[in-house]
Amino acid sequence: MKPIRGVYNPAALSQVKALVFDTFGTVVDWRSSLIAELNAFGRRRGLSADWPLLVDEWRAAYRPSMDRVRRGEQPWTILDALHRQSLERLVASFRIEGLSAADLDELTGAWHRLHPWPDVPEGMRRLATRYFLGPLSNANVSLLVRLRKFGGLPWDVILGADLWQRYKPDPETYQGACRLLGLRPAEVMLVAAHNDDLRAARAQGLCTGFIPRSAEYGPRQTRDFEAEEPWTVVASDLQDLASLLSV
Amino acid sequence: MKPIRGVYNPAALSQVKALVFDTFGTVVDWRSSLIAELNAFGRRRGLSADWPLLVDEWRAAYRPSMDRVRRGEQPWTILDALHRQSLERLVASFRIEGLSAADLDELTGAWHRLHPWPDVPEGMRRLATRYFLGPLSNANVSLLVRLRKFGGLPWDVILGADLWQRYKPDPETYQGACRLLGLRPAEVMLVAAHNDDLRAARAQGLCTGFIPRSAEYGPRQTRDFEAEEPWTVVASDLQDLASLLSV
Repeated sequence: MKPIRGVYNPAALSQVKALVFDTFGTVVDWRSSLIAELNAFGRRRGLSADWPLLVDEWRAAYRPSMDRVRRGEQPWTILDALHRQSLERLVASFRIEGLSAADLDELTGAWHRLHPWPDVPEGMRRLATRYFLGPLSNANVSLLVRLRKFGGLPWDVILGADLWQRYKPDPETYQGACRLLGLRPAEVMLVAAHNDDLRAARAQGLCTGFIPRSAEYGPRQTRDFEAEEPWTVVASDLQDLASLLSV
Repeated sequence: MKPIRGVYNPAALSQVKALVFDTFGTVVDWRSSLIAELNAFGRRRGLSADWPLLVDEWRAAYRPSMDRVRRGEQPWTILDALHRQSLERLVASFRIEGLSAADLDELTGAWHRLHPWPDVPEGMRRLATRYFLGPLSNANVSLLVRLRKFGGLPWDVILGADLWQRYKPDPETYQGACRLLGLRPAEVMLVAAHNDDLRAARAQGLCTGFIPRSAEYGPRQTRDFEAEEPWTVVASDLQDLASLLSV
């Protein structure tokens, strides 16, 4: 039986002072945002392609491209640059022609203009009244700063992978976040829509909050429809998380 | 003749996308805030001492303690820990007795509760409508996150010395800030009440904004009453800076 909505460890939760958020999928709806950007670009430039498929393949390239860095097969490379490399390859395989380097830069920049899910602005605002908030993301800091500004997100700190030159789920990212916040791992809760991210955070002693994002991957989604372990807290979205945390 | 209020390099200014702020003195009034905290602590505990003098000596210990780290005579140590070390020495020399380790921690934490100067909240709010904003400070990130929350400062990113394990005016701090923001140095302006900080930033290619804080050091202040070079812009305070930048 899977955990349903609720606080599974109230004693642990009472120690928490900072909430750090997985960002792509958990905070922002990358898929709809990117499809809209690519559709608009295609119309503007008279290009046609299966943009949703391109977006899905772009995202599918994310984990393997990071894993090459994590295994040391490629030197440290920020996510913006990985996105750019993947896009070059996809544009060729989709036979989209006539794009300049500036076009590819512009399209890669679409990852800086991702819309928050509808519950996020108000949910974050409520959570900010009691907790320190920030992303803990595999994105680079400069991408996250632009997402923060674009979405009006009330983040107190920006924790991006380039601060440690490590990608999640490497332990250095979770430990590094706690160290920069001046908090013990038990005082920090990772909020994520992905069970594997939460497992890695729990292994480092952090509290864990799950919210499902069942539409993150569109019709292709196969996982993370529900919490797979009794995380510290399980909520339906950020507004609901704020309610469960009584803020 | 000293530069007076104005924009000295409009062409350079038009390139700027992010404003980074020296924090102690420029953004927050550390002296009045700390004196108030120590006065309250003394009253509560029935201790008397020349608290303003202790605060002035505490701040005077700042530069020498950092310089020991900068010269490699002491391994990397965050500012909170340097403040704590200096306080232990001062408490002994002021013959203040009966303080526990928890008391010293609490007093060191007063550096997390410094009030912004009166022009800061509204000035920052206006500047945030056009620019990315953040501290670029010798404080550690966790101290700055707490200052941000305490003062309600609309910072988009937190740039503290522990990100690079380097203290200003080492070039790595100014360059590191630009790199994390994904901007060229010419796209970043340091705003500071201290001419030497601006000189170091200019040497790294950043734009420079001076605002005087003539009351920063109280009656002991001897310097930085005015801009000593034609910085990119010279304003009377952050509200005035926003006006000169037309936001």
